[in-house]
Amino acid sequence: MRTEPFSEAELSHDRFLDGRVMVSQPRAGYRAAMDPVLLAAACPAREGERVLELGCGAGQASLCLGRRVAGLALAGLELQPAYADLARRNARVNDLEFEVFEGDLARMPKALRALRFDQVIANPPYYPPGQGTAATDAGRERAQREATPLADWIAAGYRRLEPGGWLTVIQSVDRLADLLAAMAAGGGALSVLPVAPRPGRDAGRVIVRARKGARTPLRLLAPFVLHGAAQHDRDGEDLSPLGRAVLRDGRELPFAGQ
Amino acid sequence: MRTEPFSEAELSHDRFLDGRVMVSQPRAGYRAAMDPVLLAAACPAREGERVLELGCGAGQASLCLGRRVAGLALAGLELQPAYADLARRNARVNDLEFEVFEGDLARMPKALRALRFDQVIANPPYYPPGQGTAATDAGRERAQREATPLADWIAAGYRRLEPGGWLTVIQSVDRLADLLAAMAAGGGALSVLPVAPRPGRDAGRVIVRARKGARTPLRLLAPFVLHGAAQHDRDGEDLSPLGRAVLRDGRELPFAGQ
Repeated sequence: MRTEPFSEAELSHDRFLDGRVMVSQPRAGYRAAMDPVLLAAACPAREGERVLELGCGAGQASLCLGRRVAGLALAGLELQPAYADLARRNARVNDLEFEVFEGDLARMPKALRALRFDQVIANPPYYPPGQGTAATDAGRERAQREATPLADWIAAGYRRLEPGGWLTVIQSVDRLADLLAAMAAGGGALSVLPVAPRPGRDAGRVIVRARKGARTPLRLLAPFVLHGAAQHDRDGEDLSPLGRAVLRDGRELPFAGQ
Repeated sequence: MRTEPFSEAELSHDRFLDGRVMVSQPRAGYRAAMDPVLLAAACPAREGERVLELGCGAGQASLCLGRRVAGLALAGLELQPAYADLARRNARVNDLEFEVFEGDLARMPKALRALRFDQVIANPPYYPPGQGTAATDAGRERAQREATPLADWIAAGYRRLEPGGWLTVIQSVDRLADLLAAMAAGGGALSVLPVAPRPGRDAGRVIVRARKGARTPLRLLAPFVLHGAAQHDRDGEDLSPLGRAVLRDGRELPFAGQ
């Protein structure tokens, strides 16, 4: 848990969406890379909607979403005060409105509990308690390791949604069984989008969308493949056309197919 | 529920695996098509192993598996006596040994409860109780509509497995959340293989494999795509190379990737 604000020396300033979004984040703490960008791309928000990000960290996902869709009312909930501060600062730098609440999603601030949203997005921690090696940085440890059970993240998301609102979550594929069980328990119309590094490879991440109160059957979409068939020499050098559209050009990630 | 034996006039005689397996099945009852063949192809049985099929119907999956892998000890459990009879007859016609037990998987025959297997396979009913229109044929209705909950099929399968044994299940993608929850509850090393009709399309079926007692993380594999990219004019006219290998040539369906 990180309470005291980050000093300038602790921060790096990183470009997302080909420089359309600039985010300051701690060099040694939890550092966002591709996943918040994919989460933003998968959220089907439309102009004028209200969006809540659970566990927003330094704000990457919400700010990428705000850059793509005009006129959103963006809100975030963040447990660690130092990251909440950073998210507010990053919103100002990117000239986006972003209301960041501080608190635990299991005990949300009263002001937030009074609100309902059209969209909820989340990138919950990937590692269950007690598995693997703890991060040496306390802030990163808290961002990566599950303290609140995944099912509680999902239930908290549904509680903040209007009926018919969308919940969009990115997770490690390891957690697929838990994630689907939790998302099916509170909603329907689940769409599962596997994210694979290359054609023919296992998915490493899944993005799952659901609608509160919907009852249409689950869909398992064709994978979103990030890179081309060849081995890549340098990071990002050989993105697939859709990978480039999403990660560089800031386009929506379509849940197409059928 | 179908008790009295099928008369010759009620039966059709169908070829699977390019004629390597011949199966008599009721014209008006539950008729197997592609799914039991895919189930057999996905079972990683090796020579000399003991295999149990839950709800074996007329025996298509077990007989296709017995044709691919030499020296298996094949057993089946079937609730409907008329289908159990048919499975025994189909085994004789195909010159394969297949011991078919009659009974309910929730209350297995005592002789079967005493046995353990290296492999369990199942193609449980796809339609939950009370959903959609009932089949006019009672035997088909029983084969397609869930009377025993899906989770009970999975739990029954794990109970019959040796430690380290494999459970392989094919299901409609609609039931993915329930299926993964049940399979994760009794085993690990889950591998999820989406089966898609064409490149870029949603999966219609999933094949999920798990090992009893294993703890390695879930894998979500690249889809197995049955047909080529073009529209098909007639059924089976434009199988993909792997679709042809599995459905026509009787080859194993690889859970490769990584």
